[in-house]
Amino acid sequence: MGHNLLEGKKGIIFGALDDQSMAWKVAEKAVEEGAKITLTNAPVALRMGQIQELADSLNAEVIPADATSEEDLENLLSKSMEILGGPVDFILHSIGMSVNVRKNKPYTELNYSWMEKTFDVSAISFHKVMQTAMKLNAVNEWGSILALSYIAAQRTFPDYSEMAESKALLESFARSFGYHWAVKNKVRVNTISQSPTMTTAGQGVKGFHEFFDYADKMSPLGNATADDCADYCITLFSDYTRMVTMQNLYHDGGFSSMGMNPAILDK
Amino acid sequence: MGHNLLEGKKGIIFGALDDQSMAWKVAEKAVEEGAKITLTNAPVALRMGQIQELADSLNAEVIPADATSEEDLENLLSKSMEILGGPVDFILHSIGMSVNVRKNKPYTELNYSWMEKTFDVSAISFHKVMQTAMKLNAVNEWGSILALSYIAAQRTFPDYSEMAESKALLESFARSFGYHWAVKNKVRVNTISQSPTMTTAGQGVKGFHEFFDYADKMSPLGNATADDCADYCITLFSDYTRMVTMQNLYHDGGFSSMGMNPAILDK
Amino acid sequence: MGHNLLEGKKGIIFGALDDQSMAWKVAEKAVEEGAKITLTNAPVALRMGQIQELADSLNAEVIPADATSEEDLENLLSKSMEILGGPVDFILHSIGMSVNVRKNKPYTELNYSWMEKTFDVSAISFHKVMQTAMKLNAVNEWGSILALSYIAAQRTFPDYSEMAESKALLESFARSFGYHWAVKNKVRVNTISQSPTMTTAGQGVKGFHEFFDYADKMSPLGNATADDCADYCITLFSDYTRMVTMQNLYHDGGFSSMGMNPAILDK
Amino acid sequence: MGHNLLEGKKGIIFGALDDQSMAWKVAEKAVEEGAKITLTNAPVALRMGQIQELADSLNAEVIPADATSEEDLENLLSKSMEILGGPVDFILHSIGMSVNVRKNKPYTELNYSWMEKTFDVSAISFHKVMQTAMKLNAVNEWGSILALSYIAAQRTFPDYSEMAESKALLESFARSFGYHWAVKNKVRVNTISQSPTMTTAGQGVKGFHEFFDYADKMSPLGNATADDCADYCITLFSDYTRMVTMQNLYHDGGFSSMGMNPAILDK
Repeated sequence: MGHNLLEGKKGIIFGALDDQSMAWKVAEKAVEEGAKITLTNAPVALRMGQIQELADSLNAEVIPADATSEEDLENLLSKSMEILGGPVDFILHSIGMSVNVRKNKPYTELNYSWMEKTFDVSAISFHKVMQTAMKLNAVNEWGSILALSYIAAQRTFPDYSEMAESKALLESFARSFGYHWAVKNKVRVNTISQSPTMTTAGQGVKGFHEFFDYADKMSPLGNATADDCADYCITLFSDYTRMVTMQNLYHDGGFSSMGMNPAILDK
Repeated sequence: MGHNLLEGKKGIIFGALDDQSMAWKVAEKAVEEGAKITLTNAPVALRMGQIQELADSLNAEVIPADATSEEDLENLLSKSMEILGGPVDFILHSIGMSVNVRKNKPYTELNYSWMEKTFDVSAISFHKVMQTAMKLNAVNEWGSILALSYIAAQRTFPDYSEMAESKALLESFARSFGYHWAVKNKVRVNTISQSPTMTTAGQGVKGFHEFFDYADKMSPLGNATADDCADYCITLFSDYTRMVTMQNLYHDGGFSSMGMNPAILDK
Repeated sequence: MGHNLLEGKKGIIFGALDDQSMAWKVAEKAVEEGAKITLTNAPVALRMGQIQELADSLNAEVIPADATSEEDLENLLSKSMEILGGPVDFILHSIGMSVNVRKNKPYTELNYSWMEKTFDVSAISFHKVMQTAMKLNAVNEWGSILALSYIAAQRTFPDYSEMAESKALLESFARSFGYHWAVKNKVRVNTISQSPTMTTAGQGVKGFHEFFDYADKMSPLGNATADDCADYCITLFSDYTRMVTMQNLYHDGGFSSMGMNPAILDK
Repeated sequence: MGHNLLEGKKGIIFGALDDQSMAWKVAEKAVEEGAKITLTNAPVALRMGQIQELADSLNAEVIPADATSEEDLENLLSKSMEILGGPVDFILHSIGMSVNVRKNKPYTELNYSWMEKTFDVSAISFHKVMQTAMKLNAVNEWGSILALSYIAAQRTFPDYSEMAESKALLESFARSFGYHWAVKNKVRVNTISQSPTMTTAGQGVKGFHEFFDYADKMSPLGNATADDCADYCITLFSDYTRMVTMQNLYHDGGFSSMGMNPAILDK
């Protein structure tokens, strides 16, 4: 079913947890399209999830790394280059977690050290990955770096809480670092702003199901699924999109461009 | 070199003039990727350009059509369906022309009937293509409709004159009609906001070369070429991007996300 | 109640119809804030509305003008300068009308000559006002030109039909001409993107009441009224906002920045 | 010269350092417009700057506060309410500082604990101010909260480094908290995206003068000054703008809407 779009390419996928994860789907499609990859996640996520199963099926190695640790990232990148035989061509960052949301702290009563942790895991980790990769010359010319974001970076979804700020940070890192990567060796950096997705993480957010239905109704094509997202990621890793950089790309069935959908009033 | 991304797909390409045209490159790549296409342009452009040469090399038919004429469009769509064996899967609209710019009328002294002509050719034609295609059921489910735009729709480039408004119109038509196509049969509609490109049309604009160089310096990856643009169009016609709709997608080497590039100050 | 914010200033207000009009409220506040104004509307609107009553109460003159006629605009501007004693300091464009909406033509079956008329009345008239005013040197240094817009220029509201494109055009004219006015004599040009408003015109749109309620619920501060809008216009005509130009300013109780408001789900 | 726009209003101004500061100008104008205010800055800034001089001239009190300390903020807000006689009507946040820029750390080699400090001072402090004020019911109904931002939140200016992310965070906090304030008691929250300004802080940034000139040339009206900015802030604190919320408002002489200014090519 693949078209060998990533033939000869090497990549690293962050954030696969279980078979509902977007990163899981991206990993599967990337291999289907001819790529060789390594998989990584935080040690705690490795224990909870089923990533080894995925790795086995894809004949890929799992390298544990706390994405907030520069040391872990250095190890991950070095090992990946060793295993894959050189610098990589693509990286997917699919990591996000809010401590205040998990602990039911309202947005107007945030715990600031929890927020710091949230930012570190969900956004600053993306800068750390890029900074470490740049230091190690770990990305080939015309490589592609992607992170998964959400439209809360531009518009307010009250229940999304401090994740709005995490995504605003994430997208800003993509733009800023995108300039430096372009100048260094023509690597592009983008974020995909994806529909709410029925992942294990997504479903943990308060009121997620109602919200998912709302977004689905508001989007003329409905919500994009994790599978759809994986397809889109493949195009952005491929050589067909070399001149797209520093962009936040909505992959959302049209949600972001709707002011009002009559389907909402019909409820 | 292709990956059969458009295998089994049928499409119509508007606006190929000569081998510097973006539409020309898209036509070549679409066929290379497995599509069957028809080509069209205005009768006057057909006489001036080399489209028959392109058609011969691609084994495609040329169907003349003035894109501002609903009658011509009906004929084009009907004939295309006949030739290609049914409704199409993709359409490229790559048409633009400013009468006031051609005739050196300043933006503050516009001739309004010329502006009307400009809008009709450059933007309203896109609505007419879609309206006619919808009436004739000429686009398959999950089809993809694209038009080529420019960032002057968002920001002011004084020499671009009334083409700024043409592109603002064009992008608005994409969003508005995108809703209706999605509801009808899941067809998506997008615009690509492309770097200034060394086409025959582009080079006709006053001060184009200085401006081209400026954009090239401002863009961290440099200006995207017509070839690059064709690659990107292929991804948007393919099944990998089904949930991207009602978007204006910057394909510009990062230009749109730069506030200031130190390379500009170094001149 | 006023603060003399427009003391010594002269202006022209387009589009007052009756006491629900935004232009009507702006006219009242402008005079309350110390301005001298002239009022104008199309001859047909003058017959239908109560503008003479407003003029009497404000001690202002009404000068009929079809805003799509350059000749009428020349007459209006010349007479206004005569009456007011020189070039003006501010202009409000509050004009919009869709023929296809009035005649219940769906967006996918537009009558294109009606659309042309819609664009001419709702958007191109704004360019004509500015082009004529520039030719006649009719706006003082540091003057302020405003047009009223709507968020359908950025996002799709299916029932708003071709008015989406009209507003996209209008906002583009503001940006483009804003550059030229700034260079000429530091005049600024902006659009206000106003909440749906209970005007006579607004209420004529299909499904307006449901939509009004939706926007009101979606906006954390509720919909902005015509009175609120008039207050905001005053600040933009005053000398406190001289460096704001080429902007589209949302005056909408927060609607434009909401992704989802829990109040909508609670319905 | 004032118009009593803030008559009877009370406010708190963060960030005045010396008479080149935007906050300094805002303080002066606010008082001129009839407001009663308190001034605050970090203890270290109080020692370095001339804020006491300003306070004397305005008959205002200075309350030292580290804006990253919730305890200090609680003290500031309580004392301000005591001095001013109740909750305030407006707050200005004009605070920003980058440790990595100061220490000449390139963006691709950031020190992450310095970045954390930068975010805390430049952006998170804004959330802390609002969270503390909400807890203490320190803002009256229809109050107005403003922070000063910069277009680097949307576009890349490489020398601005991690301040891009700080401003992206700041603007996101404004949107998110704007929702909660609106719901609580109709308070609005906005950011002003101001031209590069010749403040003591601004001038500390590498290459500031070249950049200032570039922005000045690119902006059709030239760069907005600190004085201009103060005027604009007054309108946003006044009752004329009650329905503007969750917005980022460009106050930049048109910079943000320019794609290319011929004046740049003429250099």
